[in-house]
Amino acid sequence: MDKSQIVTKIIGSPKNPVKEKGRAFAPTNIALCKYWGKRNEKINLPLNPSLSISMGDLGTKTVVSMSDKEDQVFLNGEYLDPSNSFTTRLQTYLDLYRPSPNTFFQVHTENNIPTAAGLASSASGFAALVLALNDLFGWNLEQRNLSILARIGSGSASRSIYEGFVTWHAGEREDGMDSYAEPLEVRWPEFRVGTLTLSTEQKKVGSRSGMRLTKETSSLYQGWPDKARFDFNLLQEAITHKDFSQLGRVSEGNALTMHATMIGAWPPLLYWLPESVAHMHKIWELRESGVPVYFTMDAGPNLKLLFLAETQSILEENFPKMKVVVPF
Amino acid sequence: MDKSQIVTKIIGSPKNPVKEKGRAFAPTNIALCKYWGKRNEKINLPLNPSLSISMGDLGTKTVVSMSDKEDQVFLNGEYLDPSNSFTTRLQTYLDLYRPSPNTFFQVHTENNIPTAAGLASSASGFAALVLALNDLFGWNLEQRNLSILARIGSGSASRSIYEGFVTWHAGEREDGMDSYAEPLEVRWPEFRVGTLTLSTEQKKVGSRSGMRLTKETSSLYQGWPDKARFDFNLLQEAITHKDFSQLGRVSEGNALTMHATMIGAWPPLLYWLPESVAHMHKIWELRESGVPVYFTMDAGPNLKLLFLAETQSILEENFPKMKVVVPF
Repeated sequence: MDKSQIVTKIIGSPKNPVKEKGRAFAPTNIALCKYWGKRNEKINLPLNPSLSISMGDLGTKTVVSMSDKEDQVFLNGEYLDPSNSFTTRLQTYLDLYRPSPNTFFQVHTENNIPTAAGLASSASGFAALVLALNDLFGWNLEQRNLSILARIGSGSASRSIYEGFVTWHAGEREDGMDSYAEPLEVRWPEFRVGTLTLSTEQKKVGSRSGMRLTKETSSLYQGWPDKARFDFNLLQEAITHKDFSQLGRVSEGNALTMHATMIGAWPPLLYWLPESVAHMHKIWELRESGVPVYFTMDAGPNLKLLFLAETQSILEENFPKMKVVVPF
Repeated sequence: MDKSQIVTKIIGSPKNPVKEKGRAFAPTNIALCKYWGKRNEKINLPLNPSLSISMGDLGTKTVVSMSDKEDQVFLNGEYLDPSNSFTTRLQTYLDLYRPSPNTFFQVHTENNIPTAAGLASSASGFAALVLALNDLFGWNLEQRNLSILARIGSGSASRSIYEGFVTWHAGEREDGMDSYAEPLEVRWPEFRVGTLTLSTEQKKVGSRSGMRLTKETSSLYQGWPDKARFDFNLLQEAITHKDFSQLGRVSEGNALTMHATMIGAWPPLLYWLPESVAHMHKIWELRESGVPVYFTMDAGPNLKLLFLAETQSILEENFPKMKVVVPF
């Protein structure tokens, strides 16, 4: 089963556009139960279910249209050289949707999140592209099929199709047709995410190869899939009951456990900077002093604080550089 | 099976001293394959075998004699109040050896290592005490029995009975009579350990409770005992063939994996300070640039560098505060 077979299953053979421009926005998302390890690398099938919160209006706006001569990709208004890795990754993905080998796309992508700042722009990027293609070609697809198409672009993009809390089912099928994301029907207007950007440097090891290295070399990875399934259930329960303390504990423990699997890899994979550890200790001290604040981290050095509206001002005092996101 | 039954098995019933003063020195040791997790907390039986290097003349010198009225403990020449936790821990241990309930000990202990600096003083402390008691009472015990007596005082003390590289067998018996340490017959005069003391503050969570918390709450701990057994064998092989690169890789990976099991515990147990992480990155950079240097860490924030004599000067340049230990 490869990507083109999945696309054929979902949209049939590629058709011509039904309008001049397809447009869409997709939010980036932060996983509270992490996607870490694949059972199929070709079509991004995960070993464990994951759960995320979409970042409101932080994300990617994409406009896609047909082009005469060649694929043209613009990122934040700037034309990208065809050799740019972002362009080549998009082109490979767009190959799946060309009505004929000689049709080309023009893609305008606007991110309002700092690229590579630990807020995944590939998640919202691929989700917005799929939504824009759906608009351009008039597929009128169900959301779970859009989620699958986004997933084959970038795993975590499957979740960026939706707002709010989102679950991504690991699935069991080899063709991955049961591995899609769905939204949870809970609105939690008091929920906040605070991003602390400690470094915007490009990571030495991307999350794709980090996952692979960990799965192949870390003797602790064996404990991960069960832990993630357990956390996935606890988080759904916490969200349903709006139990912030449970949500916080499980999210922080899940993120740290993911990082621990990497620290047990060889060569060791440590995304943390000294400042990451300084912030962890500061958060733990605040929590010991009675402030209900937790954190999560993706495969990078940056922390994302999890808290409720009532705690926002005390946290802004303690972390003056924190940017607050209101997901609902 | 409790401690007193073990002592009875080894020395019979307590006897009177054969001389006025028993004297001994025992080196502290650093585990390259860590002791992390107990199968029996009462008599310190480990879940996995471990392997260490003794720290040459860094350790504890102990003189023990009988006392008229009460136990008296002197640490580095200073009389300790009977309520001091070090004194009470020693007294409980000495209860095992009193010829009668009304006999008391005077213990003079001199450590030439900074207490609580991440160089275990309890390892050399209990080993030196057992050796001094052996001298005082004229037990003439075999070394493996001395190792067992040291083990019931403090697990890692079982290894401090010996110089050089030392293996501690996990054993399988419930009475722990097969859980003792033995020296490896390899001298490696070029082998060096560099200690970097980043903090001498007393740890918030001691290794005894850290082990327990990790075993009970970390979903990654399940991968540890097998990993440790695997590393234990690889390290013996590396030492036998004086394969420094293998020794370094396995030791560093083992230490990081132990820390990773703690990071996966709840509440998270992170002994690292920002400076610990800064030093890790520095060591990895040096290694990438071609310098064969690795590190190990115990349950604390301090790093111990592992290298060979030929690399000493370049490392002293890079780590001006490093103290170099020559184990052979």
